[in-house]
Amino acid sequence: MIQTDLIIIGAGPVGLFTVFEAGLLKLRCHLIDILPQPGGQLNEIYPKKPIYDIPGLPSILAKDLTTNLLEQIQPFDPGFSLGERAETLEKTDEGEWQITTNEGTVVRGKVVVLAAGLGSFEPRKPPIPGLPRFEGKGVDYFVKDPEKYRDKDILIAGGGDSALDWTLDLVDIARSVTLVHRRTEFRGAPDSIEKMLKLAEAGRVNLRRNAQVTDVLGDDDGLKQVIISSEEFGEFGQDIDYFIPLFGLTPKLGPIENWGLETTKEGIRVSLPYYETNVPGIFAVGDSNTYEGKLKLILCGFHEATLMVQRAFQYIHPDKKLSFKYTTVMGEQGLLQKAQSL
Amino acid sequence: MIQTDLIIIGAGPVGLFTVFEAGLLKLRCHLIDILPQPGGQLNEIYPKKPIYDIPGLPSILAKDLTTNLLEQIQPFDPGFSLGERAETLEKTDEGEWQITTNEGTVVRGKVVVLAAGLGSFEPRKPPIPGLPRFEGKGVDYFVKDPEKYRDKDILIAGGGDSALDWTLDLVDIARSVTLVHRRTEFRGAPDSIEKMLKLAEAGRVNLRRNAQVTDVLGDDDGLKQVIISSEEFGEFGQDIDYFIPLFGLTPKLGPIENWGLETTKEGIRVSLPYYETNVPGIFAVGDSNTYEGKLKLILCGFHEATLMVQRAFQYIHPDKKLSFKYTTVMGEQGLLQKAQSL
Repeated sequence: MIQTDLIIIGAGPVGLFTVFEAGLLKLRCHLIDILPQPGGQLNEIYPKKPIYDIPGLPSILAKDLTTNLLEQIQPFDPGFSLGERAETLEKTDEGEWQITTNEGTVVRGKVVVLAAGLGSFEPRKPPIPGLPRFEGKGVDYFVKDPEKYRDKDILIAGGGDSALDWTLDLVDIARSVTLVHRRTEFRGAPDSIEKMLKLAEAGRVNLRRNAQVTDVLGDDDGLKQVIISSEEFGEFGQDIDYFIPLFGLTPKLGPIENWGLETTKEGIRVSLPYYETNVPGIFAVGDSNTYEGKLKLILCGFHEATLMVQRAFQYIHPDKKLSFKYTTVMGEQGLLQKAQSL
Repeated sequence: MIQTDLIIIGAGPVGLFTVFEAGLLKLRCHLIDILPQPGGQLNEIYPKKPIYDIPGLPSILAKDLTTNLLEQIQPFDPGFSLGERAETLEKTDEGEWQITTNEGTVVRGKVVVLAAGLGSFEPRKPPIPGLPRFEGKGVDYFVKDPEKYRDKDILIAGGGDSALDWTLDLVDIARSVTLVHRRTEFRGAPDSIEKMLKLAEAGRVNLRRNAQVTDVLGDDDGLKQVIISSEEFGEFGQDIDYFIPLFGLTPKLGPIENWGLETTKEGIRVSLPYYETNVPGIFAVGDSNTYEGKLKLILCGFHEATLMVQRAFQYIHPDKKLSFKYTTVMGEQGLLQKAQSL
């Protein structure tokens, strides 16, 4: 059994930064995440896409933000249960929360922090028979490493920003890029649509509108060909190495939905200013919560985590008064000293 | 006359980041700051001290944070009136706010954002006759550039973190460091006190407790000597190059105090979630505001600015609906495109 102060569900940017702010108050943290590595969904879905709205970081890749946050919390030595899903929540006789994961790990703590983002993202899959057979063998729902597609023939399906952006990004890497969209109009950033259309005119993107992939063919080695059904040209086969359907993602909160928390379709309802749920001692921060004025931005989650730990401290040390210090005043030695005394 | 959407008072980190979030909504900004350069108080007082609690930046100097923020807002091309103090606030017949600075600059906009930090910091000066004569000529109330003191004999007075930290920092730079404190006990980080005492034992810091500087002597070239009055050793002179009294800072909000805003001794009272003051159309973000749970941290100001501009947008475009987009989706081109269309 793992004993801690704060059990944090979700090791995305906001869950990670919670460790920092908790650490400044000498609170220990243990993080549980279904993904096999810290960094959360951004890291999983968009590791190589830059983020522009982290204050003080004009442009940073999701994976580098994760690296920086891990460095920032390193002095506070958090525990991790990665690749595990928080399944059940119980209250112990001592009044602590106890969470058991799908792997049987038991974690106890006085406070639970939900920093689970929108939950685990499931790609929306097109209803093509035989698609599951080639998943990971020519069919990818996420672009994790663009280099995988170097000098390959790829086909992207979809009409939103993901499909457009990856078309623009992969056109310089792949041998050929086909973009298939079942409608005429794209729903993406006007600038991206314009760029993609210019590439199509120049013959660099093979654009097929009003068309759909209706079947996938291949053998045990993987995908070899897709069947495209086009309003204009009827049904035909096209040889490709990779088929990348990008029809968006459906977030799934999972077992947390059964924990008795008040939720709306926007997320778990919390009260201001401490982002506490309807269950005392359970907080929700970052994309997983909702309140009046909520914006699902990483920088907002950082603020929420910072205020939340102030209230968490009172649960963990009901008799102690909290004194507030700036890290600039404490200095790095102060941080380390705090960490060593944990 | 300068016409803008948001008039931002204060060009510190939070004022600067407000430009970014406003820019994403295609709102133009003009910043007014009494300091001659952007970056605010941190930049003015602690340019070379690292900050550890900006999420995603494990350690950054205040001046580098400013540089990064300026780069981040550069696409949105904000206006600046630097070295000017916002003096008067009026409402025009068209229902806009009009601010006039002490230099006579007139700025008009639909929304006013107070991001003025704690106001302008005034150093607390010890009551020594003749001290003003040597200000800037041997008497410094801030350490701006440690290199200024290289191979000099300096005397720091004070018993708090500033006095301790600069003693520790300057001991490797100055020829000699004397630390004068009028009490026995220091009120600073325990770690800093311990380090300073070790340096004193080793003879590297000339520590004088229960002592005060009572007079300053010199000529037109500047300070030459201070008179120290010590409980143990009585009154004596000591030759020095620089006298640095560090007795803390008193923030002064200045003319803003007369603008009819509801304030407490913690700051300007705002309502959540949009950080609006009691005067519609005037917002306060960052260290200048107060609300239940408020923490005076830069990262909190970033969040406040982000939510605030959502409401500011409604003042500026009462008929438009706001659509919310992630910068990751827009991409850098999206940002630039927005900026170009301003």
